[in-house]
Amino acid sequence: MKKAVILLSGGLDSATCLALAKSQGFSCYALSFSYGQRHSAELLAAARVAKAIGVVEHKIVSLDVGLFQGSALTDESIVVPDYQEGEAIPVTYVPARNTIFLAMALGFAESVGARDLFIGASSIDFSHYPDCRPEFIDAFQTLANLATKAGVEGDKFTVQAPLQYLNKAQTIQLGLSLGVDYQLTVSCYQADELGKACGQCDSCTFRQRGFVAANVQDPTLYKT
Amino acid sequence: MKKAVILLSGGLDSATCLALAKSQGFSCYALSFSYGQRHSAELLAAARVAKAIGVVEHKIVSLDVGLFQGSALTDESIVVPDYQEGEAIPVTYVPARNTIFLAMALGFAESVGARDLFIGASSIDFSHYPDCRPEFIDAFQTLANLATKAGVEGDKFTVQAPLQYLNKAQTIQLGLSLGVDYQLTVSCYQADELGKACGQCDSCTFRQRGFVAANVQDPTLYKT
Repeated sequence: MKKAVILLSGGLDSATCLALAKSQGFSCYALSFSYGQRHSAELLAAARVAKAIGVVEHKIVSLDVGLFQGSALTDESIVVPDYQEGEAIPVTYVPARNTIFLAMALGFAESVGARDLFIGASSIDFSHYPDCRPEFIDAFQTLANLATKAGVEGDKFTVQAPLQYLNKAQTIQLGLSLGVDYQLTVSCYQADELGKACGQCDSCTFRQRGFVAANVQDPTLYKT
Repeated sequence: MKKAVILLSGGLDSATCLALAKSQGFSCYALSFSYGQRHSAELLAAARVAKAIGVVEHKIVSLDVGLFQGSALTDESIVVPDYQEGEAIPVTYVPARNTIFLAMALGFAESVGARDLFIGASSIDFSHYPDCRPEFIDAFQTLANLATKAGVEGDKFTVQAPLQYLNKAQTIQLGLSLGVDYQLTVSCYQADELGKACGQCDSCTFRQRGFVAANVQDPTLYKT
């Protein structure tokens, strides 16, 4: 069975990605990070999702919290803003986050013999984070095959971002067709300890609108 | 003053790199990793070097040890081999190591406002690790400027690998001209707790030959 490493945040997109990889017959290694994010409920969600969908291993890596500064997701003194229309990169941006996550996924993949990395990045219904765009994903795949023993020996890595061009409603429909239970997932940037969502941040807004557009009941638990 | 992040392993190359960045007027942020390497004497050396040359901050990041498998540098059950001529990638290769290190350096750099990343990678007198080659460095720089808020907003990152085309003797001569005290550094893949070197591994061999070729007394402390 081919192996894949799946970046699993515990949110809607990465859960869909894991279910998709699984449906494609991959033996799945899930990778999550504790990086000082406000929303530690995410990690509990990631564990629930990994268990529900089924993985060979779910590794949670702790990253040095002090490395990331100036983001509303890692710095309690910066308020998580309500959703705003526009193309500006919001203060919830975390410096080099997906570069670091994919780099760690690459090391993990080469160690366990996986050649496919799955990431739930999308450039539709997103917060304009630069490290979710297709040009970033492509550049990382190029790097991966220059950086590694496997890559230079011709046993190439593929970075799969299957949600790249799906809007949130399409992602939800895909996930439901694969049996994903979205009630297990947490997307909110400032969920409480029980995983209840604020309903106001970018991430909540995209998610809510996705369920509406997909004409599916929103199973999210909200704070109020 | 312009800021730079310098990857500092505690070895000869990274110490030279730090001294060079400092001589070029950069305000230096050194970054080291505890990733389960055999040679923890490296980290003590990194701390000595950072202090001797002078940095604004020296951050040591702990990475999850279990992520890297199958390398002689992280797995006690794999013997560090003696130096062998040839172009094969040896078992001391650590999966995606420089990708991970540069990714973390990128996050740190964007957080502190640095735009230059220094890495002591060289493709001369090296162990044929793919992530030391110029094509890897170039690909990482491309990635960095697609991945980050600063990069896409035009405030570009530069990945500096000033030792890329220097042989070990040239690196040593450069470092000596900058006042580097190489006795503070540890290059050996299996140094003991006092930092004493084996004299047999790839890294020791390149270093020893470098001092001979540079016609400089080797200050390295050896085990026997």
